[in-house]
Amino acid sequence: MFERLPDSVAGKHAGSPTSAAVAADALYDFSVRVLRAVADHVPCVKPQSACFERYLWPGVEAYHKVVRAAKEMGLLVIGDAKRGDIGLSSRHYAHGCLASTGFEDTGDLPGPDALTVNAYLGMDGIEPFAEVAAEQEKGLFALVRTSNPGGDALQSLTLGDGISVAEAVAKLIAQAGSAAGYIGREGYSLLGAVVGATKPRDAQRLRELMPQQVFLVPGFGAQGGSAEDVRACFNADGQGAIVTASRSIIYAFDRDDPDWESSVSRAAVEMKEQVNAAVA
Amino acid sequence: MFERLPDSVAGKHAGSPTSAAVAADALYDFSVRVLRAVADHVPCVKPQSACFERYLWPGVEAYHKVVRAAKEMGLLVIGDAKRGDIGLSSRHYAHGCLASTGFEDTGDLPGPDALTVNAYLGMDGIEPFAEVAAEQEKGLFALVRTSNPGGDALQSLTLGDGISVAEAVAKLIAQAGSAAGYIGREGYSLLGAVVGATKPRDAQRLRELMPQQVFLVPGFGAQGGSAEDVRACFNADGQGAIVTASRSIIYAFDRDDPDWESSVSRAAVEMKEQVNAAVA
Repeated sequence: MFERLPDSVAGKHAGSPTSAAVAADALYDFSVRVLRAVADHVPCVKPQSACFERYLWPGVEAYHKVVRAAKEMGLLVIGDAKRGDIGLSSRHYAHGCLASTGFEDTGDLPGPDALTVNAYLGMDGIEPFAEVAAEQEKGLFALVRTSNPGGDALQSLTLGDGISVAEAVAKLIAQAGSAAGYIGREGYSLLGAVVGATKPRDAQRLRELMPQQVFLVPGFGAQGGSAEDVRACFNADGQGAIVTASRSIIYAFDRDDPDWESSVSRAAVEMKEQVNAAVA
Repeated sequence: MFERLPDSVAGKHAGSPTSAAVAADALYDFSVRVLRAVADHVPCVKPQSACFERYLWPGVEAYHKVVRAAKEMGLLVIGDAKRGDIGLSSRHYAHGCLASTGFEDTGDLPGPDALTVNAYLGMDGIEPFAEVAAEQEKGLFALVRTSNPGGDALQSLTLGDGISVAEAVAKLIAQAGSAAGYIGREGYSLLGAVVGATKPRDAQRLRELMPQQVFLVPGFGAQGGSAEDVRACFNADGQGAIVTASRSIIYAFDRDDPDWESSVSRAAVEMKEQVNAAVA
């Protein structure tokens, strides 16, 4: 990621990432400038933890501070960390990756509003995350149908009763998400679902199986999902889905353009208009 | 986890974790003392990233340094971080969580010898991890059949052709793991599989489907798996599996026992003898 930063950001931070703190500072600087460029145009952002974890603990510090900066701009934040474990380990991840937390030496950290999680280990892996999310009035998005081509080899397999593996996961998520205390005033569960923009045929069936789940819909833009493709992810009233784009917005610039943020803003506005037109 | 430390460790570190650095120091101290207690008796350790991530970036720093300490004691280290994503994000995780890495301000870090990964996103999510593992002469363990009760609800479902979801994942792992350059001189792939000690009936079939995978076998001890149960995870020659126990060893003490490390050593030796007896 460091290699793709605008010259005006990378140049301020000593050139090459031989220092994790320098790399992390550059990522923080870039991320905050992207947030400022899009904050007036979008309700929600989804920072990718992996980009930061590559730079070890200085990167993790930068990640938490990017989340805080986004919250301070009034944005909803979905932490894209795709954590998944069981029992106490899930609970530790929930506290470290989702909860509002902080220590005297880290400062108060609001944490993201929601976290992506992996449900392959089953609902006793998801439940500790959901408990912490409920305590904190936050949310989760479990991977159900991912946007990448390779997801088909497992998620599209057909079970004996004719449903797909992704649909079986959807049923588990719908069931676990309907527990007392997990449904909010708009009728949606704190436990949502990731359903890729590149799988429009699957999305319709998954929408039926998960009427109370907010869908997080990645794959728009760089991965090939069109605004038309995402329509099936919304409920009939045009609510219930958050369409995300990453590379097509955060890298929508020439590296040597000193006004690169304007290109990022424009890309966000264009995407919003495309999605709104498709849902209208 | 802080709450379960021996008094003689916790007491050195200012009582309660209001400082992330204090909590992380205590975890590091405890972990290194556990490593010293078991290093003469076991070949391999599996630190759980979640326990450390709970304490934010100071915890992540402690985790990396625990991995380094274990390597310096001559132990093989499996980083239990269960990461999973796609494409460039998987590659970032592989560099941050698996590779030998380091920056001028973090010091050289050997990284663990292997990493646990989640295959729900498919093989284009695993491949970037495998590429980095191959470059680094390291390994991976993909979650196939986990040891927790809730894993059944997804992993035990039967597909149209009569195999289970876990067996379908096993086939994908066996196939992806057989790629050129991924098989070592003993005939095992760098891409291994997690198969819980609590699922002995499944293990036999999974062993047949994945003859070239080293099995990482959790669930022994506190989760109820017996030495007898793990026999099916080994190949006929008694090789090919790593049985792990966590809580039953690292918490095998009374908190007020000043010689708590002796209890940890004894628990490790007992477990080794039980596993060796079952495999012999």
